[in-house]
Amino acid sequence: MGKIFVDACFGKETPYTPVWMMRQAGRYLPEYMEVRAEAGNFLNLCHNPKLACEVTLQPIDIVGVDAAIMFSDILVVPNEMGMELDFIKGEGPIFANPIRDEKALDALIGGEEAANKLTYVYDTLKLIRAELADDKALIGFTGSPWTLATYMIEGQGTKTYNIVKKEIYSNPEFMHKLLAKVTEVIKFYLEKQIEAGADVVQIFDSWAAALEESKYFEFSWSYMKEIAAHIKAKYPHIPIIMFPKGIPAYLDKIDGDFDVFGVDWATPMAYAKEKLGDKYVLQGNMEPCRLYSQEATKECVESLAETMKDGRHIFNLGHGILPDVSVENAKYFVKLCQEVSKR
Amino acid sequence: MGKIFVDACFGKETPYTPVWMMRQAGRYLPEYMEVRAEAGNFLNLCHNPKLACEVTLQPIDIVGVDAAIMFSDILVVPNEMGMELDFIKGEGPIFANPIRDEKALDALIGGEEAANKLTYVYDTLKLIRAELADDKALIGFTGSPWTLATYMIEGQGTKTYNIVKKEIYSNPEFMHKLLAKVTEVIKFYLEKQIEAGADVVQIFDSWAAALEESKYFEFSWSYMKEIAAHIKAKYPHIPIIMFPKGIPAYLDKIDGDFDVFGVDWATPMAYAKEKLGDKYVLQGNMEPCRLYSQEATKECVESLAETMKDGRHIFNLGHGILPDVSVENAKYFVKLCQEVSKR
Repeated sequence: MGKIFVDACFGKETPYTPVWMMRQAGRYLPEYMEVRAEAGNFLNLCHNPKLACEVTLQPIDIVGVDAAIMFSDILVVPNEMGMELDFIKGEGPIFANPIRDEKALDALIGGEEAANKLTYVYDTLKLIRAELADDKALIGFTGSPWTLATYMIEGQGTKTYNIVKKEIYSNPEFMHKLLAKVTEVIKFYLEKQIEAGADVVQIFDSWAAALEESKYFEFSWSYMKEIAAHIKAKYPHIPIIMFPKGIPAYLDKIDGDFDVFGVDWATPMAYAKEKLGDKYVLQGNMEPCRLYSQEATKECVESLAETMKDGRHIFNLGHGILPDVSVENAKYFVKLCQEVSKR
Repeated sequence: MGKIFVDACFGKETPYTPVWMMRQAGRYLPEYMEVRAEAGNFLNLCHNPKLACEVTLQPIDIVGVDAAIMFSDILVVPNEMGMELDFIKGEGPIFANPIRDEKALDALIGGEEAANKLTYVYDTLKLIRAELADDKALIGFTGSPWTLATYMIEGQGTKTYNIVKKEIYSNPEFMHKLLAKVTEVIKFYLEKQIEAGADVVQIFDSWAAALEESKYFEFSWSYMKEIAAHIKAKYPHIPIIMFPKGIPAYLDKIDGDFDVFGVDWATPMAYAKEKLGDKYVLQGNMEPCRLYSQEATKECVESLAETMKDGRHIFNLGHGILPDVSVENAKYFVKLCQEVSKR
C-alpha cells in the first residue's frame, strides 16, 4: 500500500491532501503529558526509544494525522557532538559551555563518529516504523546547521542573536568552519535516520529570520542545500522538506534539490504559491492560534483548500501547535483538511 | 534655516541623505549610562524632562545624527491610562494587572484625559526643541495601538502572543474595543507632542510580525492609518513615519496618508523600493549587527546609497542599535551615510 503523504510530497495526485501538525506529539495531549511525567524530563524522553515511539504514535491514533514525526529534539546533535545540554523549566535549552573559539570548535566530535552516538534516535525510528500502519509516513528531521550553530554559540535562546552575529560580521571564517562541521554530522545523521525507517526528512531552520538576505543565503541556505543535494543523490525516493521560518522577502532566491517547501503562517499561501508553487510542493500554513476557535479554523482551511485546489499541497500549521489548544479543535482541523480536499 | 530631515521626509531634494538611528539615545553611550544611573531607573528617566532632554541630545552632539528622537518609552501611554508599570531588570516591562476583561477595559482612562497625564513627555519636547539647533529635526513617537494592546493584554513580552491571539480569534469585538480606546488616546497624544515641538512623528509597530496578513490589516494597520489620517488632516506640514517591523510579505497592501515607511533589516531595501518606493520615502535599513564591523558597515551603506541613489531615502538602522556597539563605529556609520550621499 502506498503512502499518500509520500505521494503528495512528490506532487502526485492523492485521494485527498494529507495533513500533519508541527509539534503534534506535544503538550496539548494529556496522553503525552503522562508519558513525559513517566520519563522524568524532556531529554530522558528523547533518549528512551520505547517512550519516544509511544508519544510519536499518539497523534496518529488520537488526532488522525497522515504522518508521524519522530519524537526528538534538534539539539541532540550538538549534545552528541560533545556539548553538555540542559532543559531548564521556563527558560528552555541551555548549553553550559557555548562554542566561542577555535579550540572549543576543534574539540567537538564530528562526522560519522558524532552521528553514531545518536543510536537512541535510530532505535526510536525502528520501533515506530514497526508499529506504524504501512500507509502512514514516518518523518525524520534535523535542525539546520545555522539554527544549531546559533544555539551552540549563544548557549541558549536569544532575542538579539548578537553573539552569533558578531561572528557573522567580524569572524565569518569561524562561522563557516563550525557550520561545515555541523553539516557533515547532519549528512550522516539523516542517512542513518533513513536507514532506520524514515520515509521523509524535514530540515527545520527555526532561526532563519535572524539573518538579513545576503547572510541568510551564505550562512544558512547554502548548507541546507548541500545537505539536501547529498541526501537526494543517495536516496532519490525519500522526499525532503525544507522549513526556513520567517523569510518571505527572500523567496525569489530559494532554489535547490528538495521536494517540499514548508510555508510559515506569516507568509501568505497565495504569495508562496506565486513564488515557489511551480517548483515545489507547499506545506502549511494555518496560523496555530486559529486552533483556539473552530470558526477561525474553518475559515482558514477552506481558504487554503481554495488557494491550493490544483494540488501540490500538504496541510499543516504554519508553526508548532500550542500547549493550550484543545484536542477537540486539533481533531476538527485534521478531519476538515482531509474532507475539504477530497477528490 | 530649513531642516533637511523634514525635507527628506517629504521627498524634497536635500544636500545629502539624512541619518538617525533607532535607540540612538541608549546604552551604547557611556554618557547615557551616567544619566540613567543618576535617574535611578528607566521609568524615572522617562518622567524627568531635564534628564530625558539631556540623553535625547547626546547622540546629536556625540554621534552627529540629523534628527533627535525624544527619549521616552511607548509604554507610558498604557501606564497613564491607569496600568501599573514596572521594568524588571533582565525581564523587561511588566504590567502587574493585564487587561483581560471588559471591566478592566472600561476602567482604563481614555481620550484626552489620559493624554493630559503625559505632561512630562510634552515638557521634555519643549526643553529639547529649545536646546536643539534649528536645522535639526525633533522626532516624537508612539507605539501603535496593536503593539500597546499586546503588552496591555499579555502583561509582558511574549514569544507566542497566545493570550492576545486567543482574543483575536475568539473575541474580536473585545480587541476592537480596546484598540479603539488606545487609538483615541494616541490621537490626542501625538497632537500634544506636535504642539510641544515635535517636527516629525513616528509610529512604532514593534509587534507587527505577530499577526497573519488579514488580521494584521484588521487589527493593526487600520488603526495606524486612522491615526495618520487624523494627524495629517490637522498638521499637513508634519511628516509621519510608519514603522511596522517584520511584514515584508504584506507590502503590496500597504496604503494610507503618511510620508515615510520605515524598512526593517529583514526586508531588502531593493524589494521595499519596488513595492513602496513610488508612494513613500523609505527609511532604513542597515542590520544593526553590522555596526560590530566597520567593513560590514561600509559594505551596507554603499549598497544602500546605490539602491537609493535617486533619493526619497533616509538612512537608519533596520532596528535599534545594540548596547555593545562601539561609539566609534556608530560615528563611522553616521559620517559615512552623510558623505556617500552628498549631492
